[in-house]
Amino acid sequence: MSVTEPKGWLAAGVQAGTKNSDDLDLALICSERDATVAGAFTTNRLLGAPVLVSRPRAAAGSARGVVCSAGVANVATGEEGVEDAREMARVAAEACDVPEHEMLVACTGRIGPRLAMDRILPGIRTAADGLDPDGGEAAAGAILTTDTRIKVVSRTIEVSGTTVTVGGIAKGAGMIAPQMETAHATMFAFLTTDGAADAAALRDILGSGLPGSFNGVRVDGQMSTSDTALLFANGAAGVQVGGSADFRAAVHEVMHELAHSIAADAEGATKLVRISVQGAASDDEARTAVREVADSVLVRAALWGRDPAWGRVLQAVGQSQGIVLDPDRTRISFSGVELAAGGVSTGREEEAAKALDGAEITIDIDLGLGLGSSQCLTCDLSPEYVEINGHYET
Amino acid sequence: MSVTEPKGWLAAGVQAGTKNSDDLDLALICSERDATVAGAFTTNRLLGAPVLVSRPRAAAGSARGVVCSAGVANVATGEEGVEDAREMARVAAEACDVPEHEMLVACTGRIGPRLAMDRILPGIRTAADGLDPDGGEAAAGAILTTDTRIKVVSRTIEVSGTTVTVGGIAKGAGMIAPQMETAHATMFAFLTTDGAADAAALRDILGSGLPGSFNGVRVDGQMSTSDTALLFANGAAGVQVGGSADFRAAVHEVMHELAHSIAADAEGATKLVRISVQGAASDDEARTAVREVADSVLVRAALWGRDPAWGRVLQAVGQSQGIVLDPDRTRISFSGVELAAGGVSTGREEEAAKALDGAEITIDIDLGLGLGSSQCLTCDLSPEYVEINGHYET
Repeated sequence: MSVTEPKGWLAAGVQAGTKNSDDLDLALICSERDATVAGAFTTNRLLGAPVLVSRPRAAAGSARGVVCSAGVANVATGEEGVEDAREMARVAAEACDVPEHEMLVACTGRIGPRLAMDRILPGIRTAADGLDPDGGEAAAGAILTTDTRIKVVSRTIEVSGTTVTVGGIAKGAGMIAPQMETAHATMFAFLTTDGAADAAALRDILGSGLPGSFNGVRVDGQMSTSDTALLFANGAAGVQVGGSADFRAAVHEVMHELAHSIAADAEGATKLVRISVQGAASDDEARTAVREVADSVLVRAALWGRDPAWGRVLQAVGQSQGIVLDPDRTRISFSGVELAAGGVSTGREEEAAKALDGAEITIDIDLGLGLGSSQCLTCDLSPEYVEINGHYET
Repeated sequence: MSVTEPKGWLAAGVQAGTKNSDDLDLALICSERDATVAGAFTTNRLLGAPVLVSRPRAAAGSARGVVCSAGVANVATGEEGVEDAREMARVAAEACDVPEHEMLVACTGRIGPRLAMDRILPGIRTAADGLDPDGGEAAAGAILTTDTRIKVVSRTIEVSGTTVTVGGIAKGAGMIAPQMETAHATMFAFLTTDGAADAAALRDILGSGLPGSFNGVRVDGQMSTSDTALLFANGAAGVQVGGSADFRAAVHEVMHELAHSIAADAEGATKLVRISVQGAASDDEARTAVREVADSVLVRAALWGRDPAWGRVLQAVGQSQGIVLDPDRTRISFSGVELAAGGVSTGREEEAAKALDGAEITIDIDLGLGLGSSQCLTCDLSPEYVEINGHYET
């Protein structure tokens, strides 16, 4: 499992001391050999300093690894913050003996404060000393903030008779509504493979996987300033995978599974919720409606309370900008129990309430108009979410 | 105070028995003489049956009163729901001895169920029997749902040497992000005056007051299917007020004060928050940014926790669709304490945290770009909000 499952990949997670806890807080992932890379970063107009440093490096297509700290996001820190991010990468590159511009950097945590460089730089050197082919899970732990568990996935496939592995780690929890563009989540997802592929192929594979994975997760409607997804390929398996449909599918599976684990471990979440709109006039209209429902605090609070509040779902669809809605044609189901048909109640609320006891819920909305569809993953809104975010400055 | 302060207005609030409590739940307001009216209704694509019935009647310009029930919204109830709304108005009109089409209707509460007509119709007759020139406060109580207190306002002015009074009642609490159009809030606001004005003048006065009052309130970003604002004028004071700047100002003051009281008494609210954006490239961009900040559950949870999380404010501005943002030019203050200037921290978080102890908070955001500005009223997000909405199907 994780980023060190593919051959030629090393990782470490250490405690640099930047969190108010004894948790690991600094991760380093590095290939033993040259590697190509594709990156996707947040489209927020406020960009974290690490994004400003890593984006052009990822665009260049060659990179050996990434250094990641958790606790402070290094966002809204001006030119000095950019210098701090660059210095993190420089020290990591030096300690790993790789070219400076081939080390990427990512930070997550509070917006506003400067990084505690006096702790981070020694932490980076300690991590480099501890790089290990079994270090992936430690790295997965060191990138977490309010997450409650590590997120690690791997897939092994055969390409041209050769075994190729794709591994990934991720973090999520809050401020999760990534809209990344290839070349663009504070979600992080770092994927590695030992297949060989040029950067253009990696960009295509990463980019085409975003809508169905990370960009389909909407925990709280808040797009982070630091969202970063990276896909590295070091070719250690000795086979070209850029054109392999199986490789593409394996990467997309790892991305989807990481996205799922982010939604399921979101701040305060007690339920994973898949919202699906079909029958919309267009895919764009379906996407707008899905987002309005996923962003509705009324719908999400109801789910926490096991209340099959289909009326709030329809109300949220109704306020979606620019969509066509004919209430008389709508159907709404909660976890397979149809609650509204033809725009009115089916009287099955009690049955649906029982279905809401599960840890996974689906909301299916059929607008009855056209062939447009869209879906996303979110979670319920609990009092715990408010507690977490009332006492943690992001 | 309230809608019975102007001459010739009667009101009543009774318990029809449609709520799971001993609270009043049915209000009736009626003029003793002919009256003109202007209405503003929700722009949600899902419209409550009472809105479907009242909107054309308000557009006709003449109406004597409104009957309002709380507990069930009569939304997503199909053609039968429309018949129920029409029947409420018919029975109220008959009991008040006014033409049927001159009685408006409004309902608030759960979406989906049918109205308990067997309780509501007798309740309407009881209310009509109890109509009283001092009944405004009872009516103000009977329109409430999760509100914790009644909202009543009045203003008295002189027009051409004659005393004219404007009175109003309102309800709010949740699903509050009204975007009403004139001839178009589940907020209700019912205003009465004893001045005389034609319907066109009333429409102009009501419409021009919406952006600065009800449409500027964003409690939870959820636009109701039932928002309704009505302004009635019965001329009992014997003076024309349609062209009076003082009358217009008095109506706008009543609207603004009612809007303020809705935001301050929102579900679970512990703090009233005024968010202001200035220095935007345009008013439209300022409005978009204000709404993103007001809708941010991260910002609102931080306010509940007395955390001056300016970074979350800047992050929310940064995700606003289509706005120009230069982080280096931004300034952000919480209740007069400047926390960020030039896009970076001023280090005054502790000072600001003290300012957040108050019941009213201001967030001032200066984008440093142009002359565009906008502001809105919202409240903090408390665990209580989630509790209320996890156990109440709207």
